[in-house]
Amino acid sequence: MPKHIEVAGLLLTLDLAGTAVFAASGAAVGVKHRLDIFGVCVLAFVAGNAGGMLRDILIGSVPPVALVGWQYVTISLLAGVITFIWHPRLERLHTPILIFDAAGLGLFCVSGTQKALAFGANPLVAALLGMLTGIGGGMLRDVLVREIPTVLRKELYALAALAGASVVVAGQLLHFPPTVSTSGGATLCFAVRLVAIRRGWTLPTADGLS
Amino acid sequence: MPKHIEVAGLLLTLDLAGTAVFAASGAAVGVKHRLDIFGVCVLAFVAGNAGGMLRDILIGSVPPVALVGWQYVTISLLAGVITFIWHPRLERLHTPILIFDAAGLGLFCVSGTQKALAFGANPLVAALLGMLTGIGGGMLRDVLVREIPTVLRKELYALAALAGASVVVAGQLLHFPPTVSTSGGATLCFAVRLVAIRRGWTLPTADGLS
Amino acid sequence: MPKHIEVAGLLLTLDLAGTAVFAASGAAVGVKHRLDIFGVCVLAFVAGNAGGMLRDILIGSVPPVALVGWQYVTISLLAGVITFIWHPRLERLHTPILIFDAAGLGLFCVSGTQKALAFGANPLVAALLGMLTGIGGGMLRDVLVREIPTVLRKELYALAALAGASVVVAGQLLHFPPTVSTSGGATLCFAVRLVAIRRGWTLPTADGLS
Repeated sequence: MPKHIEVAGLLLTLDLAGTAVFAASGAAVGVKHRLDIFGVCVLAFVAGNAGGMLRDILIGSVPPVALVGWQYVTISLLAGVITFIWHPRLERLHTPILIFDAAGLGLFCVSGTQKALAFGANPLVAALLGMLTGIGGGMLRDVLVREIPTVLRKELYALAALAGASVVVAGQLLHFPPTVSTSGGATLCFAVRLVAIRRGWTLPTADGLS
Repeated sequence: MPKHIEVAGLLLTLDLAGTAVFAASGAAVGVKHRLDIFGVCVLAFVAGNAGGMLRDILIGSVPPVALVGWQYVTISLLAGVITFIWHPRLERLHTPILIFDAAGLGLFCVSGTQKALAFGANPLVAALLGMLTGIGGGMLRDVLVREIPTVLRKELYALAALAGASVVVAGQLLHFPPTVSTSGGATLCFAVRLVAIRRGWTLPTADGLS
Repeated sequence: MPKHIEVAGLLLTLDLAGTAVFAASGAAVGVKHRLDIFGVCVLAFVAGNAGGMLRDILIGSVPPVALVGWQYVTISLLAGVITFIWHPRLERLHTPILIFDAAGLGLFCVSGTQKALAFGANPLVAALLGMLTGIGGGMLRDVLVREIPTVLRKELYALAALAGASVVVAGQLLHFPPTVSTSGGATLCFAVRLVAIRRGWTLPTADGLS
């Protein structure tokens, strides 16, 4: 198998894995808010795919990749149904899920940034769209259950995605090979997020300033 | 008049009727939340059109059909104003409105599925986009008045739309004439929804499972 | 410098000024809801740009103008950070901010209408898209912090935008020079809004009718 197909296959696998983890997070929020099985599946799909769909709409790549094949829909609904059925057991998996979520964030922010760059976005916008790919699904998930999006209020989450996205943009400006900047960006995002969880890092609110 | 024009005219009439009913539902929610006349009209337009607009954006059919002519906007605002003025009387029309709403759902789910198929969506995605056409307006209506969308929480509503959409998709895969699968799908959705209302059918939440 | 470049430069400056004021309003809402610095910047960007982005997506002009260059993103984030740091002092600027906001509304409604007309929207839809350009950012800002959008509930705000947009549409139908109808529309919107603030004009809700 030629190497670039191998890499493409690896990236798709990782992207689907990220989608599954994000979808499970959406389904868990849906269960917590006592949605029915349909609502839980909608939240799973939204959390897993809305960030990338929003990015695709904004760069003019329609239909969004999540709607082109069967994979993204199927994996999201599977994650939704599994979470719906086994959610009490999944609660014991709290820590692994946080780790997978950080990995998903790392993957989404770099793949989103690369796609935006490929569609001609300027570096600043590409980094922001990469970040949006990582956080957009979770934001819409929270809006649908009438919560102010977590990512706007607490935890260092979006900044980790922005850091990863910035590495990809910098790599492109400095003509680094994409594999280097992509893996570097994903790793940085993953690492920042894990340290932020462990240390309880948060961003300042305006209270302390006034 | 040639037959296909007659059919197209019939479909447009039915589609506008569905838009009017959904718009009236949006306006009624706006009145309930004490919005002003402008807010009531916005909710009417959103409830009547946002599902189809979202579908059109996702399949790349822009500007969305609701914004191409005058009809959809005009009928939505008319429904909004009428509901605003006569809402106490409309409350007595509760049952007829539920029946019209079920008919609108049936129409929207099949027309949405057909349009998605025409734009090359795969069968799974086409069925989901058909369902989205039927439920998207109501979801955004609820988000704007800060409610968790009804369709995610209770009643068998989305599943009726999905059933109707699936008939259209199956008809296409089995090379049935579109008129057969379209009318069959709309009828199935309508029937499922009516029975669900009468029997109080709901989908399970996760509570009973754990 | 040729005159049309001068005018284009003036329009861009005014548009960026409108974006900055709207972004500051978003940031202020974010501070009030105790969002962190990232959340405040997201609300600034959303309030300053979401109306125009939604308009661009609906007319098929992607990527939206806010994402094409650096200016809109940069000015929005600057407004967000400045508001985050100096918000106690900005509160004393309540009246000037209301006046700037009215000016921003006037600019956005006419520029949005003109763009929609240029993309072939019919007059009714163009006026509504012009209004959406003016009010869409504020609506999404409110949804993100879990409020029913102000514009749906109180104050004469959207109607001022619609009045300004209608002038632009009427000017086009009557073949007036664009500069005349644009400045006329912006001025009318600005004036209506200022009078509405001063006199406390609101639109009726349905309560008084029943």
